[in-house]
Amino acid sequence: MASSRQLTMVNDVFVDHLKVTDRGLAFGDGLFETMRFAAGAIPLLEYHLDRLERGCRTLLIPMSRTLVESSLSRFVEAISDPAPSIIKLIVTRGSGGQGCKPPSMRSSSPSLVWQNQPLTDTAHLSRSGVTLQPCRIPIYSNPHLAGIKHLNRLNYVMAAFDLPDNPEIQGLVSDEKGHILESLHHNLFLVKKNLLMTPLLDGAGVKGVLRRLILERFAPNCGLAVREAALSLDELLLADEVFLTNGVRGIWPVKGLATTRWPSPGPVTARLQSLTEAVFAGGHINKEQI
Amino acid sequence: MASSRQLTMVNDVFVDHLKVTDRGLAFGDGLFETMRFAAGAIPLLEYHLDRLERGCRTLLIPMSRTLVESSLSRFVEAISDPAPSIIKLIVTRGSGGQGCKPPSMRSSSPSLVWQNQPLTDTAHLSRSGVTLQPCRIPIYSNPHLAGIKHLNRLNYVMAAFDLPDNPEIQGLVSDEKGHILESLHHNLFLVKKNLLMTPLLDGAGVKGVLRRLILERFAPNCGLAVREAALSLDELLLADEVFLTNGVRGIWPVKGLATTRWPSPGPVTARLQSLTEAVFAGGHINKEQI
Repeated sequence: MASSRQLTMVNDVFVDHLKVTDRGLAFGDGLFETMRFAAGAIPLLEYHLDRLERGCRTLLIPMSRTLVESSLSRFVEAISDPAPSIIKLIVTRGSGGQGCKPPSMRSSSPSLVWQNQPLTDTAHLSRSGVTLQPCRIPIYSNPHLAGIKHLNRLNYVMAAFDLPDNPEIQGLVSDEKGHILESLHHNLFLVKKNLLMTPLLDGAGVKGVLRRLILERFAPNCGLAVREAALSLDELLLADEVFLTNGVRGIWPVKGLATTRWPSPGPVTARLQSLTEAVFAGGHINKEQI
Repeated sequence: MASSRQLTMVNDVFVDHLKVTDRGLAFGDGLFETMRFAAGAIPLLEYHLDRLERGCRTLLIPMSRTLVESSLSRFVEAISDPAPSIIKLIVTRGSGGQGCKPPSMRSSSPSLVWQNQPLTDTAHLSRSGVTLQPCRIPIYSNPHLAGIKHLNRLNYVMAAFDLPDNPEIQGLVSDEKGHILESLHHNLFLVKKNLLMTPLLDGAGVKGVLRRLILERFAPNCGLAVREAALSLDELLLADEVFLTNGVRGIWPVKGLATTRWPSPGPVTARLQSLTEAVFAGGHINKEQI
């Protein structure tokens, strides 16, 4: 039986490689999702598939949700290790086209690349919190591609170069106008009294699945007002609480940035953490729980 | 013996696939070059390697020019078909790192992916010229990545969607401020009296190898003044002659854009075409010829 350590499946075949002519490699012409897999389930699967579908619509990549789901079932069946892990899906436009000009949607044959890898334990960061370090290189705006999880991530790669090899320090990225966006691997939330604020992400950034769950479900159910807006570093520094969200890792409190300190976790953060943990433990979004 | 039809070599092994964990696929974390190969030589090889080296310095990918050259020699030896063809090289950062955060330069092990494919005959476009069609989606500026030939090309892919399947119509792209940049696969030059103008490309665009040859060698030797500048569509429409350049295809005159018509080729374009053809025929940059 296949081991769950770095199990890979490409277009329903258990191999670890993709054709070099694939446009995912040639142009970053595709999308990805990184999902938490535990107790045989992906808690936020529907939200991941929603975002993937939105990304495919934006990039004009033909995608059948049913096909992705049946391919996922096949992949999950081969995972033998019961420990929590990460399932990563890359969807590319496949091969073809003339240079960067893509084949028509009708003649596109997308590639589905699945990877499963162990989930390293970062539970201590949920308790102790992390520190933010502003990255020097901005994430430049591209309103046409903002929000979706596409494969063109060089700007993030370069922004990450200055960070130490220490998960307790996360990189805070801003756009070229100085508006804060997110951390390199998480969305960012600010709490100010009864208001939950998060950057708008209409020019740059990735709209995370846990970000969506918090905005659409947790916040209203907790009596929190929400605001998606262009936010400055100054507004961040004036927050009562700050936290990061990630669909695989959950919620990490932010305890500081430069000389500013925040409660870690603050009361709102702690409440949202417990709701997230219940969803993660339940294996799916349970309406009663949230 | 291996056929030259779609011959591929990955890290010195003649296979047609790359590991799915490679950061080239995951993040577009790499660069590429597309080179003309004819009569056993790549005419603009040194310029391609210069640009690749500059790109590797920008992206902090460790690259040994000697290693790339020896890998190229090995690849070229396997090409049996004497017909002119295209050699494409993709250099990625390889695998490793933590999410988008790359491995250190010291622990990076870049991948070299070579592809050889037939060169379709487009000589008629050198004679008859092409028409420009402005693309609706701008190429958004990213000054940190401008000029180099990196793998993050989704913006170009999306801009190309509106174009017909007709090589006589090339897509003209502009940045988000409306400055013209290039065509999707070529650099763009304007002739105005004795002045050769081309977009600056300090915010977006690819600085082509033939563009460099023209600016640095052909123009001075032809007594043409050169100007790299932010250029508007209006300035383009007022030009005496317009042409496109590509290191594989050479120079294509532009005969029109909307209702504007240009001589195709104009006298300056024709002169630069003959210089380019001499370099292509000579198999290398020959100082006497230019």
